[in-house]
Amino acid sequence: MNNSRSHDSIRAVLWRGDRLRLLDQRKLPFVEDYIDCQSADEVAQAIRDLVVRGAPAIGIAAAWGVVLAAQRGRFALDTALPILRAARPTAVNLMWALDRMQARVAEGADAIALEHEAQAIQDEDLAANRRMGALGASLIEPGSDVLTHCNTGSLATAGYGTALGVIRAGFSEGRIQHVYAGETRPWLQGARLTMWELVRDQIPATLIADSAASHLMKCGQVKWVIVGADRIAANGDVANKIGTCQLAIAARHHGVRFMVVAPSSTVDLTTAHGDDIEIELRDPTELLSHAGSRTVVEGAQAWNPVFDVTPANLIDAIVSERGIIERPDTGKLRTLFG
Amino acid sequence: MNNSRSHDSIRAVLWRGDRLRLLDQRKLPFVEDYIDCQSADEVAQAIRDLVVRGAPAIGIAAAWGVVLAAQRGRFALDTALPILRAARPTAVNLMWALDRMQARVAEGADAIALEHEAQAIQDEDLAANRRMGALGASLIEPGSDVLTHCNTGSLATAGYGTALGVIRAGFSEGRIQHVYAGETRPWLQGARLTMWELVRDQIPATLIADSAASHLMKCGQVKWVIVGADRIAANGDVANKIGTCQLAIAARHHGVRFMVVAPSSTVDLTTAHGDDIEIELRDPTELLSHAGSRTVVEGAQAWNPVFDVTPANLIDAIVSERGIIERPDTGKLRTLFG
Repeated sequence: MNNSRSHDSIRAVLWRGDRLRLLDQRKLPFVEDYIDCQSADEVAQAIRDLVVRGAPAIGIAAAWGVVLAAQRGRFALDTALPILRAARPTAVNLMWALDRMQARVAEGADAIALEHEAQAIQDEDLAANRRMGALGASLIEPGSDVLTHCNTGSLATAGYGTALGVIRAGFSEGRIQHVYAGETRPWLQGARLTMWELVRDQIPATLIADSAASHLMKCGQVKWVIVGADRIAANGDVANKIGTCQLAIAARHHGVRFMVVAPSSTVDLTTAHGDDIEIELRDPTELLSHAGSRTVVEGAQAWNPVFDVTPANLIDAIVSERGIIERPDTGKLRTLFG
Repeated sequence: MNNSRSHDSIRAVLWRGDRLRLLDQRKLPFVEDYIDCQSADEVAQAIRDLVVRGAPAIGIAAAWGVVLAAQRGRFALDTALPILRAARPTAVNLMWALDRMQARVAEGADAIALEHEAQAIQDEDLAANRRMGALGASLIEPGSDVLTHCNTGSLATAGYGTALGVIRAGFSEGRIQHVYAGETRPWLQGARLTMWELVRDQIPATLIADSAASHLMKCGQVKWVIVGADRIAANGDVANKIGTCQLAIAARHHGVRFMVVAPSSTVDLTTAHGDDIEIELRDPTELLSHAGSRTVVEGAQAWNPVFDVTPANLIDAIVSERGIIERPDTGKLRTLFG
């Protein structure tokens, strides 16, 4: 690995004309391996298996899955949409991207036109991330330390990142001096992926156990917790990686501010409250084993929800490419996203 | 492993007359291996390396370390005390047990008398745990679910446990119906040790990621968070395993009650506030690797505080063998422990 390469060289989702190439995020940071998907089924499987993850990235991958189906004809297209839609339940970007592709299908778009649409979704995501980076960074006082959770960077998006995009912009402007990343059990997206992106970009960064966040806030110079989102309800409640709500509660307790960074495609005005969002439960073995080795006694059970909901009243700012909402509520969200 | 064996068969610290046998907790739950310490130096090393851990257990082990030194003569005894004292900084039980042994040494106690003193420390700890189990359980309404953190069971004490003793008593009385255990990164005491004890005792138990605690409190039937302590300051602030403070903050947010269970030897009236307690920082590689395999990119840094301080105002009850203190403060602690 060459640390001098910038974040611009990381692409998790690569369209190759007749197949979708995905950086296999299960093997990072030590192996940079790619998987080629030649059908929508294979894309859906890759989304389910976390080859590709991150709300914007799975939306983009699914859009390319629709293109692969369209190249095979109308029947493949009709069966592909529900399979892709069911791949993961919580992130609404997946539904949003498929709705957008389906609308083009309904208009009679051919495979070429759908390819242009998928490319537009991908390009717009990158542009949104750059815009959110600038907007979010503007909220941060120079010289701040920040804490982030999970991975919201180039690997989770079309590039640059959402929360990590704000961190990239904030660091380049001198607003952020040090980044703390929670390791993000059970899948260790923070430890494996975010630290990889930060070290590549030479942004000063320190990994912590998820449980150390409150102690860090008490001892340290953290001014903001900055996270992404998998779905934002109409009232501003935010579904995001498990542990996010706990960080927001601790942040409020310690007087640290809490920022959510997500493109407008993450906002779901049809879901009134966060409690209405389906929280994905994944295989308990993700907690019972590590790297293929069992760590917990046989006979033990585990509960593995991979998202939680942070109530709007614990969020200081939601940053999207359309603008910033401070102290989010239903009225402010309707105004910006309605 | 035979699940029908009860908790009474687990002994982490076994005195053998001329050596101290310690169950190697680094290898649990899959290997039950023992290490024999024949000198105070070896006991101190075992404490530093987490062969034995848990505030009461390291106090007991250190007391036996003094006996091993006394068997070698006065010079060994004089050098042993500071080495044992420095083995780990946060748990005050270590200092308490060594103070007690040192007072006997100052009185001119011989090796036989010191052996009786160490045995008394061990026996009293077991009796205190049984008493705390009954007291703590009395606070819990029948049919409750509870959440615990780290390992506070037979492995962390002379037997039965502190917080896990309350859980054992509460389960046997029908007050507790289900136990959730946080895995307790980075060392996974909850996943590896607490789940092992609970499965052996056939207490219904479910493992969660530490980050899932707030979501569990919101979704579930958890009525109490029950934890141990490594040091309780004069004002009721509690140093305990990293993540404890975050659980207390989340518990208060969700209306879940918070109980600390620890013998009176954990109370340190000479430390006025929790902020005065030294928090041990351990090797960052505990976060950068897992089971000997590196999980984080080379060049990454980590911060690994292994305890934090929960302020007294987030604690609903401190349970010791001397009684229960609800809503702890300096006056109540002075009355019970002064």
